[in-house]
Amino acid sequence: MVLLGSTGSIGVNTLIVAKRFSLHVEALVCGTNIKLLNEQIKEHNPKVVVVSRQEDVKDVNHKNVYYGSDAILSVIRDSSSELVVNALVGFLGLRPTITAIESGKRVALANKESLVACGAFIDTSKIQPIDSEHFGLWYLMQDRPVERMVITASGGAFRDWDIKKLQNATLADTQKHPNWSMGQKITIDSATMVNKMFELLEARWLFGEGQYDAIIETKSLIHALIDFKDGSSTAHFAHASMQLPIAFALDVDMQEKILSHVDLLKVGSLEFREIDKNRYPIWEIKEELLKNPIRGTVVNAANEVAIEQFINKEIGFMDISKTIVNAFDKFRDIPKSVDDVFTQDSEIRAYLKAKN
Amino acid sequence: MVLLGSTGSIGVNTLIVAKRFSLHVEALVCGTNIKLLNEQIKEHNPKVVVVSRQEDVKDVNHKNVYYGSDAILSVIRDSSSELVVNALVGFLGLRPTITAIESGKRVALANKESLVACGAFIDTSKIQPIDSEHFGLWYLMQDRPVERMVITASGGAFRDWDIKKLQNATLADTQKHPNWSMGQKITIDSATMVNKMFELLEARWLFGEGQYDAIIETKSLIHALIDFKDGSSTAHFAHASMQLPIAFALDVDMQEKILSHVDLLKVGSLEFREIDKNRYPIWEIKEELLKNPIRGTVVNAANEVAIEQFINKEIGFMDISKTIVNAFDKFRDIPKSVDDVFTQDSEIRAYLKAKN
Repeated sequence: MVLLGSTGSIGVNTLIVAKRFSLHVEALVCGTNIKLLNEQIKEHNPKVVVVSRQEDVKDVNHKNVYYGSDAILSVIRDSSSELVVNALVGFLGLRPTITAIESGKRVALANKESLVACGAFIDTSKIQPIDSEHFGLWYLMQDRPVERMVITASGGAFRDWDIKKLQNATLADTQKHPNWSMGQKITIDSATMVNKMFELLEARWLFGEGQYDAIIETKSLIHALIDFKDGSSTAHFAHASMQLPIAFALDVDMQEKILSHVDLLKVGSLEFREIDKNRYPIWEIKEELLKNPIRGTVVNAANEVAIEQFINKEIGFMDISKTIVNAFDKFRDIPKSVDDVFTQDSEIRAYLKAKN
Repeated sequence: MVLLGSTGSIGVNTLIVAKRFSLHVEALVCGTNIKLLNEQIKEHNPKVVVVSRQEDVKDVNHKNVYYGSDAILSVIRDSSSELVVNALVGFLGLRPTITAIESGKRVALANKESLVACGAFIDTSKIQPIDSEHFGLWYLMQDRPVERMVITASGGAFRDWDIKKLQNATLADTQKHPNWSMGQKITIDSATMVNKMFELLEARWLFGEGQYDAIIETKSLIHALIDFKDGSSTAHFAHASMQLPIAFALDVDMQEKILSHVDLLKVGSLEFREIDKNRYPIWEIKEELLKNPIRGTVVNAANEVAIEQFINKEIGFMDISKTIVNAFDKFRDIPKSVDDVFTQDSEIRAYLKAKN
């Protein structure tokens, strides 16, 4: 396989599963964590390696090292692997997804922004999602008519905060996720509930037209539910570990024991809550966005700019959602191609940066 | 279809579903509720009717009325229907199940005692269970390796009682089931947890060797869970209505909307509890019984005698479980045939009645 984002949380877990399944890792692609990369090179012996920055190349213990985003695309095109695991973070993960599919490869996709920004122009039959929620939906799917698909949210770091205090929440505050240990951006996205909106959009592209919704399940043990037409609902329970969706993304027919089961007697109780628009203002645009999922391009671009501004302390926490909702209201053009997606993305970023 | 037990709760719901699906009812069999039977005859126009007692025959508005258990077997044998719905209560439902299968018919089986007492000698490939728990397991089953199947219990009428008061509980007390409205015997069986033990035995016969267990889910919204080998667990949720399992028992490929979905936001929370051996002493023999499910004959016979004695105020509530556990300890012969089952059943009943 080609593994993009090898030193992040998904990348590390992917290598654990790859080792267990004795899968060959042809290429490792990462950002700036060269120490961990060198350990991964030693263990997995890839043919080629790509890092973000030129200045890091000399520190990588490998004879075949490249840098930068064009190198990622070349490595994908030139690889003999049938599978690309895309665990890059943000819009910069989109080009590699498109390139991988154009090169005839399957994509195990953890990069949410690919489908959120460009789902209309991606052949999702080539994609196996690496995400507990979409994995859960996939696992529950049967040959019976579906009425509604529901994914769950933990509610993020601010689930139980006084809403009035949210505007002044700091970056450090956003990182206190109740149930999962993940990267910085996705943990902010959990706190704003943008992450769950993204997952609804991804679900829409992966599973097609239909009813989609999300609810809060505070312990993150149920990841997905399907309401079947007959009146049955089924739910997928698993401990919060990415190794399970990764294992199935690497081998959809795998039959190994990956995790121990959730013990409901130890769990004792489960709690469900509505996603409150006052706490998560992004939820205001949910219905319109799900009706027009192609407008995800705007939401993703605005979110990435707003997060950057929040990290730089230029805006407060609640302004992230406000920025997105305002951009969603202002930018209404529907992209007609992948190129349009990149153009619109740039326009929105330029506009929001100039405005601030 | 031939419907055995038409005036009970399952029978009434079966006729509602049969009407909706425009299924012809060839024969109606019931006990002593002649008023309701006459309404059912008017609506469903069966070819033949069987009641329990000779003295009721004259009150039935039908030209073709028989009475007694031999008549039930004759009607099954002579019917042209491919399906027999067996919603009789107790051991007396066993012969009709066997006769129906011998006559080449499918059996939609709500009579629990058939499989509990005689599962080793019944071809379960001819059976579709009418029960939320087995329906839930059947619905959740996929082509993936299973580690454990779990059904849920409400805990019955005495779930929250002071254990010290249970011995003096009355028949009226046993009937206060928290979530379901069912017949008298099954509601007593819920209070003792014998019902759940029966369902575990049925599951064992229906789904084969494996790990089976039960837990309490206090709202009776989850009916079954499967722990798959990979670490995923799936759960079946539905409102407490028998129409859903009945609809699938009548037509396994049906795609109608039978119930509205469970709304977890309205539900708010779910609670899981262990089945406590002090409150439900029958649980003491669970492991041994599941290892030797053929010994269900003893448990069923002892339970039926003990319930009769409890209703007649000859024994206290906790004595029902004691009677079963003692009989299970004493009667260790393994039936080798259907005839052995009937012989052992008679012996146990005679012994327990003489003893009291």
